[in-house]
Amino acid sequence: MIRIAVVGHLARTSGDFFLSDMPGGAGRMDILCRCINAAFFLSHGLRREIECYLVLCGPPSPPKIVRFSGASLRSLNPDERSAGALIKKALGLPVGSEFRESTPGVAVRRGGLPDLVAMFPFAVLDEGGRDIRASPRLPEGFLLSDHLDFSPEERAILGEREMLSVGPVTLHADHAIVVLLNEIDRRRAGWTS
Amino acid sequence: MIRIAVVGHLARTSGDFFLSDMPGGAGRMDILCRCINAAFFLSHGLRREIECYLVLCGPPSPPKIVRFSGASLRSLNPDERSAGALIKKALGLPVGSEFRESTPGVAVRRGGLPDLVAMFPFAVLDEGGRDIRASPRLPEGFLLSDHLDFSPEERAILGEREMLSVGPVTLHADHAIVVLLNEIDRRRAGWTS
Repeated sequence: MIRIAVVGHLARTSGDFFLSDMPGGAGRMDILCRCINAAFFLSHGLRREIECYLVLCGPPSPPKIVRFSGASLRSLNPDERSAGALIKKALGLPVGSEFRESTPGVAVRRGGLPDLVAMFPFAVLDEGGRDIRASPRLPEGFLLSDHLDFSPEERAILGEREMLSVGPVTLHADHAIVVLLNEIDRRRAGWTS
Repeated sequence: MIRIAVVGHLARTSGDFFLSDMPGGAGRMDILCRCINAAFFLSHGLRREIECYLVLCGPPSPPKIVRFSGASLRSLNPDERSAGALIKKALGLPVGSEFRESTPGVAVRRGGLPDLVAMFPFAVLDEGGRDIRASPRLPEGFLLSDHLDFSPEERAILGEREMLSVGPVTLHADHAIVVLLNEIDRRRAGWTS
């Protein structure tokens, strides 16, 4: 099981946004939709061993966490609108502090970064981190930020976690996920370089 | 200069499609939009040294080639709709066999794979190819297919070109572009693994 979490600093926490305005009114929800695509899609199917957690911190009722579970995920297509529609449905549910399933493989709960930290161990993907290719053993959990840097408060919550970098150039979160999974694919398949 | 070309086997060749229906009515134009995103976006800006060629082979007037040139590209945002809107504008122009600019950095012409082959040398990204990490010197041009395999006729046009693979698992075209550019970034920056 590989777990990937992405913090959406401005991402809307109700399902009243328009799929045609995800970069605007939905608080850069388009970025999170592309992260879902990057985390799950293979040419011929889905990565069933992935869980992807979106930590939504925007108005009107932050924070919430939407979890996509590859093992049971259905009705996901690669286009942004498809992931956006599943997030919209999840955000339409009334929620408490336990995950509640909105559609197969998608669940939502109240909670933010302090809750995520308690859920599973992870390294932080960050441009200042150690090269993933040079890491002898990759962890099974990863956290990324959206287009905004982690705030000082968030960095304090993250503490002294391992920092890993996917390359010499700073990438969008979804591209970083693609590079990370390629490195994991290669190690699993015994492709050495 | 790095040139990346993607064949869209069903991609619509007129600008009358809806941005909210790119996977359907536009013939999987969403795939090509994500390839544009993958080819150009860095966290803080665009890859100015990239040219990306979309070879559109769908109805009603195939084939056409839409070229995105990083050096002069403007008005491109990372979401699929943004690239889709620029492709729509390009396909609204009457065209002949020379590139004609539709918006800054975007141009369109009549033409298909035989024309592309004459424009610049390239390797083919293909799951059966040689690992890019094992290639001592990467070329400066690359061709990929969308969700459909190259047809026998297309393979005949491509001939005995170098075939390169980005990893042990078959990826979507846009993900393959991300992995490819990461390898190029690493070589340029002297990151060895």
